[in-house]
Amino acid sequence: MLDSVFKPTSIAVIGASRQPGTIGYEILHNLLIAGFKGAVYPVNLKASSIHGVRAYPSIAAIPEVPDLAIIVVPKERVVQVAREAGQAGIKGLIVISAGFKEVGGAGVARELELLEVVREFGMRMIGPNCMGAINTDPEISMNGTFAPSTPPRGRIAFMSQSGAMGVTILDYAAEFGIGISQFVSIGNKADVSSNDLLEYWDDQDDVGVILMYLENFGSPRRFQEIAREITRHKPVVAVKAGRSHAGARAASSHTGALAAMDVATDALFAQCGIVRMDTVAGLFDAAIAFGNAPLPAGPNVAIVTNAGGPGIIVADACEARGLKVCPLSEESQERLRERLPEEASVGNPVDMIASARAAEYRVALEIVMEDPNVDAVIAAFVPPLGIESLEIARAIRAAGEGGPKPVMAVLMGREGLPQGMTELREARIPAYIFPESAVRALAATYRYRRWLDRPRGEVHTYEVDDARVGRVLAGVREDGREMLGTEEAMEILEAYGIPVTPYRIVTNFEEAVEAAEEIGFPVVLKAISPELVHKTEVGAVALDLENVDELRTAYVRLSKSTHARAGSGQLRLMVQAMVRGGRETIIGMTEEPNFGPLIMFGLGGIYVEAIEDVMFRAQPVSDVDADEMIRTVRGFRLLEGIRGEAGVHLPTIQEVIQRVSQLVGSHDRIEELDINPFLAFDDAGRCVAVDARIRITAQPEAQLEAR
Amino acid sequence: MLDSVFKPTSIAVIGASRQPGTIGYEILHNLLIAGFKGAVYPVNLKASSIHGVRAYPSIAAIPEVPDLAIIVVPKERVVQVAREAGQAGIKGLIVISAGFKEVGGAGVARELELLEVVREFGMRMIGPNCMGAINTDPEISMNGTFAPSTPPRGRIAFMSQSGAMGVTILDYAAEFGIGISQFVSIGNKADVSSNDLLEYWDDQDDVGVILMYLENFGSPRRFQEIAREITRHKPVVAVKAGRSHAGARAASSHTGALAAMDVATDALFAQCGIVRMDTVAGLFDAAIAFGNAPLPAGPNVAIVTNAGGPGIIVADACEARGLKVCPLSEESQERLRERLPEEASVGNPVDMIASARAAEYRVALEIVMEDPNVDAVIAAFVPPLGIESLEIARAIRAAGEGGPKPVMAVLMGREGLPQGMTELREARIPAYIFPESAVRALAATYRYRRWLDRPRGEVHTYEVDDARVGRVLAGVREDGREMLGTEEAMEILEAYGIPVTPYRIVTNFEEAVEAAEEIGFPVVLKAISPELVHKTEVGAVALDLENVDELRTAYVRLSKSTHARAGSGQLRLMVQAMVRGGRETIIGMTEEPNFGPLIMFGLGGIYVEAIEDVMFRAQPVSDVDADEMIRTVRGFRLLEGIRGEAGVHLPTIQEVIQRVSQLVGSHDRIEELDINPFLAFDDAGRCVAVDARIRITAQPEAQLEAR
Repeated sequence: MLDSVFKPTSIAVIGASRQPGTIGYEILHNLLIAGFKGAVYPVNLKASSIHGVRAYPSIAAIPEVPDLAIIVVPKERVVQVAREAGQAGIKGLIVISAGFKEVGGAGVARELELLEVVREFGMRMIGPNCMGAINTDPEISMNGTFAPSTPPRGRIAFMSQSGAMGVTILDYAAEFGIGISQFVSIGNKADVSSNDLLEYWDDQDDVGVILMYLENFGSPRRFQEIAREITRHKPVVAVKAGRSHAGARAASSHTGALAAMDVATDALFAQCGIVRMDTVAGLFDAAIAFGNAPLPAGPNVAIVTNAGGPGIIVADACEARGLKVCPLSEESQERLRERLPEEASVGNPVDMIASARAAEYRVALEIVMEDPNVDAVIAAFVPPLGIESLEIARAIRAAGEGGPKPVMAVLMGREGLPQGMTELREARIPAYIFPESAVRALAATYRYRRWLDRPRGEVHTYEVDDARVGRVLAGVREDGREMLGTEEAMEILEAYGIPVTPYRIVTNFEEAVEAAEEIGFPVVLKAISPELVHKTEVGAVALDLENVDELRTAYVRLSKSTHARAGSGQLRLMVQAMVRGGRETIIGMTEEPNFGPLIMFGLGGIYVEAIEDVMFRAQPVSDVDADEMIRTVRGFRLLEGIRGEAGVHLPTIQEVIQRVSQLVGSHDRIEELDINPFLAFDDAGRCVAVDARIRITAQPEAQLEAR
Repeated sequence: MLDSVFKPTSIAVIGASRQPGTIGYEILHNLLIAGFKGAVYPVNLKASSIHGVRAYPSIAAIPEVPDLAIIVVPKERVVQVAREAGQAGIKGLIVISAGFKEVGGAGVARELELLEVVREFGMRMIGPNCMGAINTDPEISMNGTFAPSTPPRGRIAFMSQSGAMGVTILDYAAEFGIGISQFVSIGNKADVSSNDLLEYWDDQDDVGVILMYLENFGSPRRFQEIAREITRHKPVVAVKAGRSHAGARAASSHTGALAAMDVATDALFAQCGIVRMDTVAGLFDAAIAFGNAPLPAGPNVAIVTNAGGPGIIVADACEARGLKVCPLSEESQERLRERLPEEASVGNPVDMIASARAAEYRVALEIVMEDPNVDAVIAAFVPPLGIESLEIARAIRAAGEGGPKPVMAVLMGREGLPQGMTELREARIPAYIFPESAVRALAATYRYRRWLDRPRGEVHTYEVDDARVGRVLAGVREDGREMLGTEEAMEILEAYGIPVTPYRIVTNFEEAVEAAEEIGFPVVLKAISPELVHKTEVGAVALDLENVDELRTAYVRLSKSTHARAGSGQLRLMVQAMVRGGRETIIGMTEEPNFGPLIMFGLGGIYVEAIEDVMFRAQPVSDVDADEMIRTVRGFRLLEGIRGEAGVHLPTIQEVIQRVSQLVGSHDRIEELDINPFLAFDDAGRCVAVDARIRITAQPEAQLEAR
């Protein structure tokens, strides 16, 4: 519970200052002018009063035990002050002071020391290196930040990982009238994490929407568990900064080479129902919509406008964002025709032409809102001579206020704009200046609607042979290797119930012939050195050997290859059944640094290299996640079957993806895995892994557990 | 020349009104308060003076011949008034009145009548249905619009196809201080088109940048000719509205099914060097950059900031828009380390931390601007306590003003923001509130830079047999058909020097055997009915027939197929050489409604259906265009060669694309064309068209010429 931080009855400001412009002064000032309902106790070694409030030389000198201490002292004194707070019985800390983990070196140690103190006394701490917290609940009225702006009261809870962005966010919230319930800048997240905040806000009745500005994830696995539950109750909208690619990273697998932090975030958010916005501006647009309008039931948008240009722009933006500019019903069109001038267009967009006044807006909006084809309405207005935004805003309000379908307004131009905006804000009708803003906000609410409609999905646990996997991995570790040999990788797949092509390992020609006859011609002969990445490129594989003669030729060639003797020096080749046809897919996993395991599915063969047609999800992958992965690759039609070809057996692919997810969840040491190709057929029984590569980490056991 | 419209020495306002709030009043009002340098003559049947200016009952009564008449009379009187203007010797018209082509019916006829009058008297006309024109040249000072805002003087020329968007554009120009040289709302474009304006503005010394808001193209071919020349001298930045897909359009070719108006616009703009922006907001962002900053020499951006969050956001946006956050030189990093506090990060972004004041901004900006790795600089600032935007804006100005590299500012938050913005605007340093705005503007200038660096390209004319094509097309028309038979399509390709697989048309089995032996086994047998779209789907093709027996079996099966006897009822089959291997590509053309011919290249076979990996260009296609088409398909690596495979012979594909472009340019009647597959090999001599479909239009000759 974070009530000690967000709902304190009394607050000590330790390091409060008499000097305006310092953080120690501004925090005290904000607490006082926001009208905090409890008592504020400035703590300052020398001053006897600050900002008209009696000050105390130490925490111990305060006549009661405050719930919360806001700490603004120099970094060297923070740990000591936190200890004093703990000793006094204070339960919540907000540490504004910087100079901790973010500066590296001694700062890291200082942060660990601080965290120890916090844990020792059972306190909860926001920060360090943060800009504070706000609760606009009139019973609390706490502005415990040093930001110059105080946001209006509303139902949005906002967390910002960056203090600088926090200042900006509060500025914009005040400017755009975005109502905030609680706000917190979480700084270094030494104790209270974004996960803790999500859980806390899930329980707060006055929080209707959660907004996040994130730069990284503490524990993506736990984040996933928490977020996918909360998003069933409340929308969570996020900007995740730090999209930049890791660049040319060292990865020996396809999956590793194709992954990136940003892909990981997209995957995680898709699995959790978090609505991702690309920009902070977009986050605000979405906040206005989520905070005020009902969710649309579907993607169909009616556009009502007084000019062709804005109508087209709104329509374009809708199509670009996955919304539909739907045809209106015959009845709606008829009714519109009766009420609008002859020159008006009663299709969609409804263009009422420049003569449209409040009366036309109101009637047209009412008609389209009653249309059963329509899920949401955007009213766009460009002020012609003599018609003011305020008049139109009142009409939009009259038509749209409190209705079951979302109505959004786009008021362009400047005349009467501020009054129009205020009018609509009061009616909780989202209003924007640019058409694109309205549309991206509406599209975000529709994405959330689809999440609510999506089946929850289940993470299955299959019966597998973990002991066998453990033995294989232990053997590899004992050899001091990271790469598994092909036959070791295949054995792990078998242990996990993933079908593999029949194969034998051979060390001489006689064994090769024996194996081929047992498996049945045609066969494939492969060098299986762990160092090989793409066997076809280096001529380390011979396909489609029809008989002993062909096998012999291939054997002679391959046994001369260095790859056949890599490592031990002993000749080792693999004889494998030749599988013809099928659709090449790739199923893989990679460990994303600072994130965790990512599971990948994609079209294999040349597709994976030339088109990069792959989709990621964070581990663990549910049945619904796996299904989405398959259906969202661009070339999905190849799997469904085109040109009269039969499609492949999708449930089999879905299951293999989930088995891979379970495998990497149960065996932390696996760091990269490619099943490439996994050949898919329409017949489930023929689907089969033809080749696989697995790499494990060389990290010691202790680091592995910590990650 | 449009000087009569943009540089008049005297203006008649016909339909001027004494009633404020009417267009007839507001235009006169705007002309007077903008301080027009010549004389304004209000024309009104009854009033003797308007707005303090003597009024005249008719054009004839005006004591001199004005250069320009602005017409605001009711639609029914416009043609008569235009005639009077012509008779009086007036050379320029701006027709504000609506009720013409845009309302259909009688309006269309009225517009044609008006145009006739304009042509009869050799006048030039803006409109009808427009909101007027502006020239801010102090020697002219003309605001001939009824918009409430007058933009500041600057080097941007702006044309808007929508009057409503025009009002909005002028509002924002005034608000954001975007300096305008000339502005015009072009309305129905009955006489003066966007092409005319481009040519006119190309010659105007006080126009440095051209901005366009377009909803359609008059003549895309002429637009292409004009624009690709002008963009060599001046940047042209455009929003093209109307992106919506044509939906499920009736198209019998792949190329037709994959094309869309928006794709056509992208193609045309790419060929002309026009920088397309997605949104009007983006257009303004770009306008600020193009109007003020130098172009970046390359994509490398240095970011200087006082907080991590904004730095990351700017970096993300750069990567998303094709810019690079480059490493700084060792020397720059060393110099930064000397001048910045220890906690600062001297990588890129340069994070000077919250304590950074004007001095730090100035020195850091100067250092990164001197770094040879850096092509452009973005300075981002979030106001910490006690540091105001104005102070930082002055530092950015001091460092960046007049330098050879673009410097852009992002000032977040509200404190001191307006003063900071004004400071930077005076110094012609583009300044924005949101990081994304700065980055999309910078990226737009970089795109234009790349266009300037791109070779001009040439539209080649190959020696071909147009007479032979004409004969084939004439035959098809005589039959009353639209679809060509396969052999007719192949003949046209041959006439255009496009290599085709050897084939013979046969009508009985003996001929089939003869043909197969002549061509050489293995062969392909095909039904060649024009109605067939995808031959493989309906079993109308037999591949890889190795000998006479296999040919017989296939012959028996195919000759029973209805497709073998479609049309005349006579059995007709095609025997073709069987081509093995090669990379399947598709080369095609479609006629985009209201646009013209589009040429397509893409990866063929299952790619074109499952991945839609294709690229379009407007006809005519230059050598450089063709090369870009090939290189920008997603799966280009398949053509270059991957996994050690040889690449295909790209110059051959390039040439075939250009030959197709010439074909459809010389034979207007061709409406759809698919060469699918065109098999590409590394050896130019083996590249070959295996199948082709051509459809011609049934339109009468006259309509064809008009289109």
